[in-house]
Amino acid sequence: MIKVSVLGSGNVGFHLVNLFYNSKKIKLHEWYSRSLESDPRVKVVNEIASLTESDIYIICVNDDSIAEVSDKISNEGKLVVHTSGSTAYNVMNKKNRRGVFYPLQTFSKFQELNYSKIPICIEAENFKDLETLKNLSLDLNCKYYQINFEERKTLHLAAIISNNFTNFLFGVSKEIIDSKNLDFNILKPLINETVNKIHKLDPIKAQTGPARRNDVNIMKMHENMLKNEEIKSLYMVISKMIKEKYGN
Amino acid sequence: MIKVSVLGSGNVGFHLVNLFYNSKKIKLHEWYSRSLESDPRVKVVNEIASLTESDIYIICVNDDSIAEVSDKISNEGKLVVHTSGSTAYNVMNKKNRRGVFYPLQTFSKFQELNYSKIPICIEAENFKDLETLKNLSLDLNCKYYQINFEERKTLHLAAIISNNFTNFLFGVSKEIIDSKNLDFNILKPLINETVNKIHKLDPIKAQTGPARRNDVNIMKMHENMLKNEEIKSLYMVISKMIKEKYGN
Repeated sequence: MIKVSVLGSGNVGFHLVNLFYNSKKIKLHEWYSRSLESDPRVKVVNEIASLTESDIYIICVNDDSIAEVSDKISNEGKLVVHTSGSTAYNVMNKKNRRGVFYPLQTFSKFQELNYSKIPICIEAENFKDLETLKNLSLDLNCKYYQINFEERKTLHLAAIISNNFTNFLFGVSKEIIDSKNLDFNILKPLINETVNKIHKLDPIKAQTGPARRNDVNIMKMHENMLKNEEIKSLYMVISKMIKEKYGN
Repeated sequence: MIKVSVLGSGNVGFHLVNLFYNSKKIKLHEWYSRSLESDPRVKVVNEIASLTESDIYIICVNDDSIAEVSDKISNEGKLVVHTSGSTAYNVMNKKNRRGVFYPLQTFSKFQELNYSKIPICIEAENFKDLETLKNLSLDLNCKYYQINFEERKTLHLAAIISNNFTNFLFGVSKEIIDSKNLDFNILKPLINETVNKIHKLDPIKAQTGPARRNDVNIMKMHENMLKNEEIKSLYMVISKMIKEKYGN
């Protein structure tokens, strides 16, 4: 049984620990965290150098700290992977065999996930480690994709636009709705349907709305309704882009 | 049994006809369309003035044409409603009793919908018509909300931001992914989860990503990857708004 240690207790580390703990096919060995004192499921280690031998060390820290964390691992010749969408594996110390195990999903600490649907983007310096990462993904019931650094960066960028930016727009909508004491729940079926559509229609073909139709009066009215200058400007910028894209 | 006529064969009219036709509690009487010749389910009328007597006339045309269409209805004293999120009912000819029946949903002609989840925002000049619109919503297994014009405009604006703008961002993501010959399907579990979250977490609290963390290196890298100046500028604008909102 493959022995895995997780380094980091942010959103990704937190969920990977859950995932490994709940897998019958993987041995969750140790968890490095600066802040956690203990965990009922796994031995918690507060110093990286204190981590003992494991088959795979999975680094789940901010991109800027990956190199430093990899340096501090005292073992050598092991498989060390990070979970970043935007970092090359060669930032990590080459005393270990290096790779990437990037789960393309949004993680919030206290939000349960349907883990089986997570695509894992994997990459490794050598063929055998790539096979190990494939097996690790399959042992988690996840789907793996063998993705190189350029591709991974592209996916990460697209993920930020699809996830972080749309979530931000949901927040903007909620604030607009809250400002009139309306119920954000009224909007949820629409938001669900917006996403249902992408499974059936190309989003580029599915575009609707005033900007798509070049409905100038409606857009002008919305601009006047938006008192927050930044949000008004965002409304105008995106509407302009939609108008131009669809030839209005 | 309430007799309903639909005016207009755009996305909304098309789906309302489906909806009424499939309801056992509503009689779909006539459908006005400039372009359709016939339909197996309902009598199609190509001139508004040729519409015969009905209990409710539902105008599903572009906002700018609502007033004109309402003028051309030859019947008087009937209930006439439009389906717009951004138009007052009093733009319609007052020879009829006026109201609003605004389904807060995104309609694409050939996309099947789970109709039961559509919230309908209703408004009417008089109490009895409001009751009729409530019953019409319930007969369709939809949920109704009694919403005045100011509130409806606000919901519509929020809907455009949550639906049209996020769909546009999905399209931008898809183009980025297509440009490297990657598979947009890899991103779909993430997009699903982005929306699942809004049912459990306030989107304002659920925000993640490089801008939320003020990860300057990643954002700089993404800006360099984006060769399309407009999309680069959009990336920078939204990232800046997220950074400022979260105090970075």
